[in-house]
Amino acid sequence: MAETIFSEMSRLALEHDAINLGQGFPDTPGPREVVDAAVAAMHKGWNQYPPAVGIASLRTAIAEHQRHWYGLDVAADGGVVVCSGASEALSSAMTALLRPGDEVIALEPYYDLYGATAELLGARLVPVRIHAPDYAVDADAVRAAVTDRTRMIVLNTPHNPTGAVLSRAELQSIADIAIEHDLVVLSDEVYEHLVFDDERHIPIASLPGMFERTITVGSGGKTFSVTGWKIGWATGPADLVGKVLGVKQWFSFAAGTPLQHGIATGLELPDERLEALGADLGRKRDLLTEGLRDLGLEVFHSKATYFVTADVAPLGVTDSLEFCRSLPERVGVAAVPNQVFHASPVGVETQVRFACCKRDEVLADALLRLRKL
Amino acid sequence: MAETIFSEMSRLALEHDAINLGQGFPDTPGPREVVDAAVAAMHKGWNQYPPAVGIASLRTAIAEHQRHWYGLDVAADGGVVVCSGASEALSSAMTALLRPGDEVIALEPYYDLYGATAELLGARLVPVRIHAPDYAVDADAVRAAVTDRTRMIVLNTPHNPTGAVLSRAELQSIADIAIEHDLVVLSDEVYEHLVFDDERHIPIASLPGMFERTITVGSGGKTFSVTGWKIGWATGPADLVGKVLGVKQWFSFAAGTPLQHGIATGLELPDERLEALGADLGRKRDLLTEGLRDLGLEVFHSKATYFVTADVAPLGVTDSLEFCRSLPERVGVAAVPNQVFHASPVGVETQVRFACCKRDEVLADALLRLRKL
Ligand SMILES: CSCCC(=O)C(=O)O
Ligand SMILES: CSCCC(=O)C(=O)O
Repeated sequence: MAETIFSEMSRLALEHDAINLGQGFPDTPGPREVVDAAVAAMHKGWNQYPPAVGIASLRTAIAEHQRHWYGLDVAADGGVVVCSGASEALSSAMTALLRPGDEVIALEPYYDLYGATAELLGARLVPVRIHAPDYAVDADAVRAAVTDRTRMIVLNTPHNPTGAVLSRAELQSIADIAIEHDLVVLSDEVYEHLVFDDERHIPIASLPGMFERTITVGSGGKTFSVTGWKIGWATGPADLVGKVLGVKQWFSFAAGTPLQHGIATGLELPDERLEALGADLGRKRDLLTEGLRDLGLEVFHSKATYFVTADVAPLGVTDSLEFCRSLPERVGVAAVPNQVFHASPVGVETQVRFACCKRDEVLADALLRLRKL
Repeated sequence: MAETIFSEMSRLALEHDAINLGQGFPDTPGPREVVDAAVAAMHKGWNQYPPAVGIASLRTAIAEHQRHWYGLDVAADGGVVVCSGASEALSSAMTALLRPGDEVIALEPYYDLYGATAELLGARLVPVRIHAPDYAVDADAVRAAVTDRTRMIVLNTPHNPTGAVLSRAELQSIADIAIEHDLVVLSDEVYEHLVFDDERHIPIASLPGMFERTITVGSGGKTFSVTGWKIGWATGPADLVGKVLGVKQWFSFAAGTPLQHGIATGLELPDERLEALGADLGRKRDLLTEGLRDLGLEVFHSKATYFVTADVAPLGVTDSLEFCRSLPERVGVAAVPNQVFHASPVGVETQVRFACCKRDEVLADALLRLRKL
């Protein structure tokens, strides 16, 4: 299997000493309590195997988080499995539930792992496109994509790479289809706290009749700016979560013990601290959006996540993949072509995703470099 | 899929406040430099995504380790992939190389993950038993197990649960078969440094003609007594290692950044420090072996690993699985039935694996508790 686009672009960034607006990770530390708690755990000698399902305090904190923020009744015992990153939560869930020949519906653009994992399992990802600039979900298109082989809908809200946040009405239309056709929903919600302005993240599991058919995926790395810790999780009803654990225990078995302690501490921080994350990032979204518009690019409004998408056609670009492959060397900036989130690049040939989760001066420098184009 | 035996026994140990001689992990800290380096990395802010393949300094340290200890010519770029534990190295390697219907030969007893992963992939694990007390490899039996569907031999040396260390002659006999039938060898060598007395670990990749067909798996957690960090790796020729990376990038994507820095520091410690690990553990093997013999049990000689196997038939036991399930509650000790490492329990119904990697007083206490039986 080919190198992921994130690996490729981060590698090129390193090689050419470029500013990395490709792979999504912040360049400032998250809450210091989180790092302090992981360090304390290490010094206490909490460095041996955790339970495969995750340490009790983190599972409790995750369950409590789902209850407190969303009113979801998640059981700390049985309703939560800690994974080696949201990646592993997603890949184990798909492995647990999909058989060769099964179909999985995903909103397109979609995170590359969904398609790659489906392929690995001999399943088929069926894309349903959402379009710039507003990225509205076309429920009729989702419904039309259902066949008797459809087993799962992979949802992603807040949505990478578009920065869309699905509305209650959109979620309800998807929920209706899932219930009607008895589908499982795998909902990737790793950007749940990285929402801007007055946007509110709504987990699809909180809609009537949905909890029992939804696996919700969260990420400590994304929420607390420690993407390299690889602590993610799946929550949901015991039968589905048990199946994720059943696979995950044969993948990595468990996730880093001291890092789990750090994330547990993060989830116990006051609400304001989590809300501040989105507020700060929203300002960066503005900086990047305005800067790219000043370069003459069309920039689509991002409501959440680490990312902003721009159309680089005004720069004379016809193929964003080629463009992004040369960008680090040409001007010292790395970015990700939106093409790679699509089964077919038609219509998005010139879209490029830029990460806004960087220090203001880094964003300013990147914009200065892009000006050379 | 069922809970792993390690999860089950550790859970029972916790529930009954029992001494956990089940799942293999030490109860004393490893080299302090390793923890210090991970802490320093966290404080430096090295908490964001590492490359999926692993951080450069760890890959260099792993390559250098394989060269220094075994004369293996491993390339830090291309010949090493860092994984979320040896578990992920093994499961990604099997996923990368096995197709439904393929057969995998493994020495029996075998670590449960091999069989479970083969099953998950629709492949078939074909066991070739090695027998107590000497656990000699029967090359004719291995040869007889090869069919035209055989794709891989999963090897494990030093061997869990028996504590066997495969000799050069045994490895050569397996190498001959692998070469003759063009098989890949997946060699689980996580206990490479936990060998006792004058035993020497030999990687099968170091035998003539073997490097190019062998994926060797190592573990920072086992070597440096930080089993909960989940930093393992696969080394070998670029084509095979590339395939492991190709899958692993869709499992967890990457392993904990600061923990990788810690393990890199561990691999750079002077040889004596790694040799001391085995020496110390050998003494514990003696304590446990003698203590179990004092209880009237037959104990098979363990040459390596965290483990010692005893036959508990003299206690009137007929089924070690049932025995181990009741042991935590009955006397406050947890252990693992060797049955679970077998496709068929016939002949090993009364064997039990005890971990010796515990403080002397804990081993003494466990033996005292077992005396109640
Ligand atoms: C796991 S690497 C990719 C990180 C990410 O979520 C993104 O950049 O979209
Ligand atoms: C990954 S849990 C099992 C630990 C281990 O290697 C063992 O106890 O055999």
